[in-house]
Amino acid sequence: MSSSKEQLANLKTTPQAAASPPRPLESLRGPSGGNALDRVIVKRLLATLGEPAFDFELWTGERIESGAAHKVATLRIADRATLLGLVRNPDIEFGDGYSEGRIEVDGDLVRFLEALYHGVMHGNLRPSPVRQLRQRLSRARSNTLDRSRGNVHHHYDIGNAFYELWLGDTMAYTCAYYPTPAADLETAQIGKMDHVCRKLRLRAGESVVEAGCGWGSLALHMARHYGVKVRAFNISREQIAYARERAVLAGLDGRVEYVEDDYRNITGRYDAFVSVGMLEHVGVADYRELGRIARDAIGPLGRGLIHSIGRNRPKPLNPWIVKRIFPGAYPPSIREMMQIFEPWNLSVLDVENIRLHYARTLEHWLERYEAACDRVREMFDERFVRMWRLYLAGSTASFRVGELQLFQVVFAPSSNNEIPWTRAHVYGA
Amino acid sequence: MSSSKEQLANLKTTPQAAASPPRPLESLRGPSGGNALDRVIVKRLLATLGEPAFDFELWTGERIESGAAHKVATLRIADRATLLGLVRNPDIEFGDGYSEGRIEVDGDLVRFLEALYHGVMHGNLRPSPVRQLRQRLSRARSNTLDRSRGNVHHHYDIGNAFYELWLGDTMAYTCAYYPTPAADLETAQIGKMDHVCRKLRLRAGESVVEAGCGWGSLALHMARHYGVKVRAFNISREQIAYARERAVLAGLDGRVEYVEDDYRNITGRYDAFVSVGMLEHVGVADYRELGRIARDAIGPLGRGLIHSIGRNRPKPLNPWIVKRIFPGAYPPSIREMMQIFEPWNLSVLDVENIRLHYARTLEHWLERYEAACDRVREMFDERFVRMWRLYLAGSTASFRVGELQLFQVVFAPSSNNEIPWTRAHVYGA
Repeated sequence: MSSSKEQLANLKTTPQAAASPPRPLESLRGPSGGNALDRVIVKRLLATLGEPAFDFELWTGERIESGAAHKVATLRIADRATLLGLVRNPDIEFGDGYSEGRIEVDGDLVRFLEALYHGVMHGNLRPSPVRQLRQRLSRARSNTLDRSRGNVHHHYDIGNAFYELWLGDTMAYTCAYYPTPAADLETAQIGKMDHVCRKLRLRAGESVVEAGCGWGSLALHMARHYGVKVRAFNISREQIAYARERAVLAGLDGRVEYVEDDYRNITGRYDAFVSVGMLEHVGVADYRELGRIARDAIGPLGRGLIHSIGRNRPKPLNPWIVKRIFPGAYPPSIREMMQIFEPWNLSVLDVENIRLHYARTLEHWLERYEAACDRVREMFDERFVRMWRLYLAGSTASFRVGELQLFQVVFAPSSNNEIPWTRAHVYGA
Repeated sequence: MSSSKEQLANLKTTPQAAASPPRPLESLRGPSGGNALDRVIVKRLLATLGEPAFDFELWTGERIESGAAHKVATLRIADRATLLGLVRNPDIEFGDGYSEGRIEVDGDLVRFLEALYHGVMHGNLRPSPVRQLRQRLSRARSNTLDRSRGNVHHHYDIGNAFYELWLGDTMAYTCAYYPTPAADLETAQIGKMDHVCRKLRLRAGESVVEAGCGWGSLALHMARHYGVKVRAFNISREQIAYARERAVLAGLDGRVEYVEDDYRNITGRYDAFVSVGMLEHVGVADYRELGRIARDAIGPLGRGLIHSIGRNRPKPLNPWIVKRIFPGAYPPSIREMMQIFEPWNLSVLDVENIRLHYARTLEHWLERYEAACDRVREMFDERFVRMWRLYLAGSTASFRVGELQLFQVVFAPSSNNEIPWTRAHVYGA
């Protein structure tokens, strides 16, 4: 038994050793067809996660219970290779195993993931040196123009029809702002656009430049309801084509110009700079340059707003999300975000964290996604259906447990004294 | 002439050389009694400041004009030693020279200082290596318990009667919050206390710990108007004595306990942690520990607020202010402030920058200070009167030009999902 334990310890600490196939352990086979090492591995996993609120069920039907008093789900593992994969490379193997049906969750997927993340955050997990190095490298990496195009194409160009199934009419693919927790998704997406426009105190006749405009809804909203002219940049061809069509249909193509180009090619002078949900795709190494672009765009008397997923402290995005869903993505801490503003003496006027609004937004997306999953299966396949379900559910759980944050940052050059006296105007007071 | 220029260049770049007395230059004496080197020095100063909005007048009566189109003041220099001091060690010499009457400002002092700071910020000043090193050292320095007591005693224990002359009834010695720019000081100081309490969403029956409570006004306000119990820490003996008297007079001594001790000795568990205007006296090296204390004080479900003077980017406080007014003080950038929260996984929920409110607060203080300056002269002397005038006027100018910021940061552990859904409650919406 102690040699099995040592073997397990090796699996945990040296990835190279873990990569070699497990020795045959038939002699340890237990009463229900599983063997003792499998049970040891699961018990060790449960202990590492601080006895989370879910049990395991092995391919043999054997159930291994967590010490938690209250359980929300059971995690079913289809084979030993999957179990060992979870030890070796938990993030990737969990994501791929779930997508391929080798891992199943009986119970509410979001609640299960909350329990899992809670265990990862508050359990006894120690980051390995290899992982820490990978984290450092992923943070320092700069997204070149070419790499940015590849990353964005991977995610945003998989088909507008797919996103239309679950994003709702606004096609806004960023955190909504719910005036009350009971508001519906459309109300909240429009609420977010108004929240951004009020924070920027947009006035009719002003000009705005937008970095990363998605399918163009915010630019249209600003032009229609605040009377501003907008130049909106995006490198996703599919999104830009879609946005241009919408502008023509709305009769706003004279006041909103969609530019298929990188934010690094923004030129000209505007009253306001706005970027909602692009920063996650900008490498930290490029923050300084983003700040210079924003400063040059607004001059000494403008103002700006950046809306982004973030963290309480530096840590890369889940590696499975980066590998399968969002290549090159990184949610920064506030400290890291300051690399945008500090070098250019930009004053941060307002930071708001609305992480619970993103949890709600994702719940609404997931609800619609589930309702449309037959259509998704027709468009792609079952693996894709499960992959995106896990991504949406995992993101919901991350915002609920505080693993992810959502920051809106308002800024202005320190030379601008025409900044709002209070924030009461944002709340209609 | 070229050798004079070289000598001047030496004065600017090598402090050692600058410290040696200037050579006699009688041969360069100009038409009005000053000599050519004096004029060169002043012209060089003006150029370095990017031709600011003020002229110089020398002890000879000679006037040396800046190239600016619009002027707000004339700076009169009483003797050559003072002029050379301004080159050698501008911050200290300007402060001491003004305090001792060797430097006089004809015109509005605040406007003059705005022009001066504008020149320092946007002119051609290059920080010397010596100054950069001094900056690094001053930032890294930790305030030990003893040093903190000394620093606080220096400033806050010079006499409650002195502060009563110009702080107003609340005796709140921190940035006020003006519901409208026209509000008076008392309204705005009470407005600040309500703003803080609303941001913390205090409810009757809750408990609050306050780190650095000044003369105790916020603690009293919270207990009186929000029905909470407060333990308030401060190491200024004079302030604590004053605060205790007020609590007795208000009949609130059963609900507000003033503790004469360092924030590092806070123990116990509270619903909220609040600190208004103390962080400036905490060394950056101690931010991590402050965060631990706040986290331990509020546990997994509390919330907190820190209100502090800050910067757009790291830079020490004006050395003269540190030397004569606030030893050990340092206004951090947001990036630096994150060292409080990041190590403990505390979520920053809200950052508000109300620098223009501090400019207004200081205007009100300065107005009252000027009205009471005969009393101040009786209490101290003319040098003290001028020293504090310069400090109040200089701080006003710093907030106006964006050299200083005022941040209110609301935070909570990421495990707390009972955070306010929006900020509308702060604005009575």
